Amino acid sequence: MPGAIIDETTWVTTEVPGPVSKQKIAALDKVFDARAVHFVVDYEKSHDNFIVDVDGNKYLDVYSQIASIPVGYNNPTLIAAAKSPEMVSALVNRPATGNFPAENWFALLTEGLLRVAPKGHNRLFTAQSGSEANELAYKAAFMYYQRQKRGEGVEWSDHEIHTSLHNTSPGSPDLSILSFKNSFHGRGFGSLSTTRSKAVHKLDIPSFDWPHAHFPALKYPLEDNVEANKAEEEASLKEVEALITSWPNPVAAVIVEPIQSEGGDNHASPAFFQGLRSITKKHNVLLIVDEVQTGFGATGSFWGHDHWNLTTPPDMVTFSKKAQTAGYFFGDEKLCPDKAYRQFNTWIGDAARVLLCNAVIDEILKRNLVAQTARVGEQLYAALERVAEKYPEHVHNLRGKGQGTYIAFDTTNAAALVKKMRSLGINIGTCGKETVRLRPMLIFEAELVPKLVGTLEKAILAIQ
Amino acid sequence: MPGAIIDETTWVTTEVPGPVSKQKIAALDKVFDARAVHFVVDYEKSHDNFIVDVDGNKYLDVYSQIASIPVGYNNPTLIAAAKSPEMVSALVNRPATGNFPAENWFALLTEGLLRVAPKGHNRLFTAQSGSEANELAYKAAFMYYQRQKRGEGVEWSDHEIHTSLHNTSPGSPDLSILSFKNSFHGRGFGSLSTTRSKAVHKLDIPSFDWPHAHFPALKYPLEDNVEANKAEEEASLKEVEALITSWPNPVAAVIVEPIQSEGGDNHASPAFFQGLRSITKKHNVLLIVDEVQTGFGATGSFWGHDHWNLTTPPDMVTFSKKAQTAGYFFGDEKLCPDKAYRQFNTWIGDAARVLLCNAVIDEILKRNLVAQTARVGEQLYAALERVAEKYPEHVHNLRGKGQGTYIAFDTTNAAALVKKMRSLGINIGTCGKETVRLRPMLIFEAELVPKLVGTLEKAILAIQ
Repeated sequence: MPGAIIDETTWVTTEVPGPVSKQKIAALDKVFDARAVHFVVDYEKSHDNFIVDVDGNKYLDVYSQIASIPVGYNNPTLIAAAKSPEMVSALVNRPATGNFPAENWFALLTEGLLRVAPKGHNRLFTAQSGSEANELAYKAAFMYYQRQKRGEGVEWSDHEIHTSLHNTSPGSPDLSILSFKNSFHGRGFGSLSTTRSKAVHKLDIPSFDWPHAHFPALKYPLEDNVEANKAEEEASLKEVEALITSWPNPVAAVIVEPIQSEGGDNHASPAFFQGLRSITKKHNVLLIVDEVQTGFGATGSFWGHDHWNLTTPPDMVTFSKKAQTAGYFFGDEKLCPDKAYRQFNTWIGDAARVLLCNAVIDEILKRNLVAQTARVGEQLYAALERVAEKYPEHVHNLRGKGQGTYIAFDTTNAAALVKKMRSLGINIGTCGKETVRLRPMLIFEAELVPKLVGTLEKAILAIQ
Repeated sequence: MPGAIIDETTWVTTEVPGPVSKQKIAALDKVFDARAVHFVVDYEKSHDNFIVDVDGNKYLDVYSQIASIPVGYNNPTLIAAAKSPEMVSALVNRPATGNFPAENWFALLTEGLLRVAPKGHNRLFTAQSGSEANELAYKAAFMYYQRQKRGEGVEWSDHEIHTSLHNTSPGSPDLSILSFKNSFHGRGFGSLSTTRSKAVHKLDIPSFDWPHAHFPALKYPLEDNVEANKAEEEASLKEVEALITSWPNPVAAVIVEPIQSEGGDNHASPAFFQGLRSITKKHNVLLIVDEVQTGFGATGSFWGHDHWNLTTPPDMVTFSKKAQTAGYFFGDEKLCPDKAYRQFNTWIGDAARVLLCNAVIDEILKRNLVAQTARVGEQLYAALERVAEKYPEHVHNLRGKGQGTYIAFDTTNAAALVKKMRSLGINIGTCGKETVRLRPMLIFEAELVPKLVGTLEKAILAIQ
């Protein structure tokens, strides 16, 4: 079937979703909520930066499964890991890792994930999703808070034990986690209580009475708004400190994303995060950095918070998405609860996914992909700057300079722009209100910049 | 090395954990909380009902990774699934299933999990753990409750939207889930608010102000306590109804395990559960059955609640553990929220684990394993009855008759008994206060009953 071939690497010959996708979406929707499906994918034909749908359309994918594909579809290193004997055993003999770990579990952690542990962190707890990772970090923070309050070595009282089973204080204390407006930290009842980005995630779901501060709303371009942005960040920090010292439910931890992602790709300066570290240290509140979306290299550093040059590390760092597994890192042994079985569950993550994660890390280190995102990100940002100058109405508040390929911009009608781009062979996503977020994989190359940016221009011309 | 060979199939030649396990536990504990590790496992050498540790000890495993290994270690059907091209793709091309499902996702559900859907259920949402499955069910229940309250088709108000982002009512309403004393429903902030089994799970963690009723504490043997048990169940139901009609935070759903597992293997009669269904129907409260541990065949039925002969099905049924994946089934379309993206997350389960689950289902159906657990369970129960008569102090309140191999008994010192059994080649677990729970795999055979029960007798003689 002849179609609107865009160039040698992508083509879209049907509307999106195409007729085959539509039929499959309708069938699926009878048993599984398929209302958010963009198109149905032929993953066998997808490769590297390119995703192919069941209608045979091929897209350059800069959304990457909501920022979660690290090193390309059908990556050979990952395929080798998937076919390894270790993988077969991890799949078919799934252990209750806390009780009966496999012989290779220690090596999987020390020769794998711990190679990329954030500075100051040498321990971890594994999980299965970003939401779970954050909630486990919150639980560690609450137990740590009460441990300090109770006094080291002091046994739980009968009253605490009794009240905990009745969901009442003091056994189940009224403590809180402070997060930021527009943040996204997950969808469990604890993580959702810290998520503040959109009502669609939160409406109708009971929440904890936890505080949130304004996240700095920086003005762009940064160089023209230095004083205003500084004042904005200081105001936010002031609010954080005021909430910590006044909120009725004591704040055990602050959680923050290095770049607020789902909430609109909102950035803040290293000075802001340094200030946050100072305030949390001053008030003996833990600092949890949610690197679920920013971690694993896309910002031009392995961890988003590497850009901050902190003098003391964050207390816990959570990860998921590109890691293909999830969990949290930490350094202080006292973040391990005082007794066994307090931080625990049947599987404690999934060794199969940890094996994949380790292959991802191999690939990142071997191919020097963090340096690549830094380098390609610069080129991509420069190319987008030119589009922003040309079409300021369609590309403004361009942000993410120096943050690898973690780039975003505001536009007038994000849904229409993204739809048009998809029809022109670019699979791309939105966030916040009218923001287009770029989430190419770590293997996104400079050669693809003209295609991505050129298609953006075409799409702008087509919809305006 | 010569050792105390017990019989031709198991042997334990070291103390447990043995020296190699001990060394590995100590190393692991420096990076990962290893305080609950019983021994480190050589999964390559483990097979069928037998688990082998790194010291070369071989145990008959009737704990099965906290009741989560369904069809044996290194099961050939599961190995074939693990080596399939579909598995490789599911592992290396992990989709954001809600946005970009794989072509085979529909078939994976309809030809897989949905084959075993509980009666009256034809839809599902996939998850990664039992905790997550239950929390997703709670969220569905809360959205359903508010949808009815708001009125079908009525749009969200600005006030609701605004307050939801501030974690306050009415956007974030004070609704509740009713659970039972001694229940275990998971460890997330919502699921943990319904868990009531032990303080070690709950202490120091903020909880929702949700109600719980007494679960019937039946007296054994059942035939000698018919009237007392009936009264006990009626009292519990009365309490449920009183809580539903009086609790300040309206009850959107009741969650119950068919057999309270972690909380002590507490059973109730079909009449109790029929009563629970009647009360929830009467008050328009949803009934969620937590089949995380009871589902997938061990009770002599595929689902634990199959034993109840309900006239209307439960509203949601959650699963995990032996399924090797997780999620919840439902039938009423209105349990799908009114808009897309409300029940959503990046991965929505894991197709790799769903593929394994489907292989488990194949194996269960092909080998007729549900009938096997019913048959072998009868023999096992009869053999244990004889031990209970002989050593009533060590084996009392024997329960689980007619519930397949899902059998448990109380004893005087469960920790000592289980430790001794482990040293004699049986890996077995506890629950509740002083309860030994049997959780053999579905492939546990009648030939193994004498070994299990004989070793129990030996262990009793050794510790008394």
